[in-house]
Amino acid sequence: MPELRKDPIIGRWVIISTERGKRPHDFVVEPEVTKGGFCPFDEGNEHTTPPEVLAYRAPGTEPNTPGWQLRVVNNKFPALATEGELDRAGEGMFDKMNGVGSHEVIIESPNHEITLSSIPLDGFFRVLKAYRERIVALSEDPRFRYVLIFKNQGRAAGASLEHSHCQLIALPIVPELVQEELSGGKFYYNYKERCVFCDMISQELQQQTRVVLQNEEFLAICPFAPRSPFEMWILPKQHFSSYVDMQEESFRLLAEIFSETLKRLEKALGQVPYNFILHTAPIREPQLNYYHWHFEIVPKLTLIAGFEWGSGFYINPTPPEDAAKYLRELTL
Amino acid sequence: MPELRKDPIIGRWVIISTERGKRPHDFVVEPEVTKGGFCPFDEGNEHTTPPEVLAYRAPGTEPNTPGWQLRVVNNKFPALATEGELDRAGEGMFDKMNGVGSHEVIIESPNHEITLSSIPLDGFFRVLKAYRERIVALSEDPRFRYVLIFKNQGRAAGASLEHSHCQLIALPIVPELVQEELSGGKFYYNYKERCVFCDMISQELQQQTRVVLQNEEFLAICPFAPRSPFEMWILPKQHFSSYVDMQEESFRLLAEIFSETLKRLEKALGQVPYNFILHTAPIREPQLNYYHWHFEIVPKLTLIAGFEWGSGFYINPTPPEDAAKYLRELTL
Repeated sequence: MPELRKDPIIGRWVIISTERGKRPHDFVVEPEVTKGGFCPFDEGNEHTTPPEVLAYRAPGTEPNTPGWQLRVVNNKFPALATEGELDRAGEGMFDKMNGVGSHEVIIESPNHEITLSSIPLDGFFRVLKAYRERIVALSEDPRFRYVLIFKNQGRAAGASLEHSHCQLIALPIVPELVQEELSGGKFYYNYKERCVFCDMISQELQQQTRVVLQNEEFLAICPFAPRSPFEMWILPKQHFSSYVDMQEESFRLLAEIFSETLKRLEKALGQVPYNFILHTAPIREPQLNYYHWHFEIVPKLTLIAGFEWGSGFYINPTPPEDAAKYLRELTL
Repeated sequence: MPELRKDPIIGRWVIISTERGKRPHDFVVEPEVTKGGFCPFDEGNEHTTPPEVLAYRAPGTEPNTPGWQLRVVNNKFPALATEGELDRAGEGMFDKMNGVGSHEVIIESPNHEITLSSIPLDGFFRVLKAYRERIVALSEDPRFRYVLIFKNQGRAAGASLEHSHCQLIALPIVPELVQEELSGGKFYYNYKERCVFCDMISQELQQQTRVVLQNEEFLAICPFAPRSPFEMWILPKQHFSSYVDMQEESFRLLAEIFSETLKRLEKALGQVPYNFILHTAPIREPQLNYYHWHFEIVPKLTLIAGFEWGSGFYINPTPPEDAAKYLRELTL
């Protein structure tokens, strides 16, 4: 059983997987990208993945057979165990619990060649809708407190399979960075009685210098203090603390801006590896007036992330105003 | 002039360098490791670096000439400007100031071939002593609040020159992770009236399962909730909040344990890239009862740091008990 452990100083939880080997060459995890050859995510190979927990498929087709547009399956090599109780316990001053959670893979398309930046808009819409559906379903499980959705695009960003997909991890804890955003947002709200994200959106719309794209409901910006060159955030203009509060129709507009954001990123930087992460309120929270869901897209351009995540200190050679101007003015 | 900017939500400061080019291929910073050929850090090439701010050298030799064992020089491509006032200012809701600071390089040895794991103990001692001397000197400058010392070993960890060196950045702000440790340590102290690090040390010494090495004054452990496989911390057993509080003689024992720690790491994992970072109290603070200086050594084994630093959420396939046992039982 994997274990969740809490750093006693700063309170950060990590997953310690105890299922793996014990010698250093077993410890080193180098993702291998399969190129060519057999792909378990291709249409026709449905039997080689764990059974689907959600699929959008042609009427009349059977689960785990061809005929789908999108599939969500459990990860074959999950970081967490689905079954079991949390069994919170101390070990002297330290805190731990069982590594219970759900680790799923969202296969975005049956087409092996497609990427999220090239998928048609109705395909992107399905991906965004599936996020919501899975968060809603997993919110039923009282053991979970957070659903983390992210994408690793490209080997340098951690992708281990070429076929375009994203991942979902349902957790019994709130990840550190979201916890910090919640605290920061609450602190700001207590002083100003306004949402810090709403204030930021209103200033970005006024200044325009860091705006990359916008439509009626959404805004894509390079944030004021980005950790990485060409970092971008996509936020709803209206205040919603949780992704699940969105109406399905909004995902059409979100698909449009998200797709064009990724297209512009790739036009600017080529097949750049990137990660994106959905930041949303913990599950089963009521609408929070101090938090505002958003996506953070972080291209992996520099090699120095090791030092940077070890210190929490970032040196970014690219002013976000320059990045935003460049991205905005590109001809697609 | 580079700029320091504060994220309005979580309060993290980043350096935005505004001195670089404006097109994407200028933005991408890929460190190039010079192999063979001319090296500015070699003995005899002193005139090709900025002038030394500290050197340990043979009596009678002139500054910036051969005859040294260790040199500290300003970084030729500094991330921060040495001259200028902070000029703290707002931009609407955002906070910024001039990117004033000092960016130095500690050249650990005149020998191009040596690494910190193979440097003789008196060489390691000089490196540790130089850290203290530079922190003390930079503490005189009222513009600075923190001195960050770190090493990038290997290209994948961000090293841009092969010749063994570490870096120092004096900053007008406290880096996010140290700020979190200070807050966490204070929170724990307020409740327990004990230092969280001292409690941790005492439990580690009792349990022994995560201890890698120890001597009279220092302890090397794999921490309870490590972010990365084979992550190690080195701490003084006695309570000191700042590295500058150490007596010079202690650095001999620190050099011994630190050197052996790196040797064991390389014996276990080969020429693994790694980062280490000195975590110490902000400068000019009195002795703090809730903070405890230490080194954190983080090998760069996985490719997924992008996602991980983007979420603050870590999946570590190696239980620290297994890593510590392996490192401890190695025959050097």
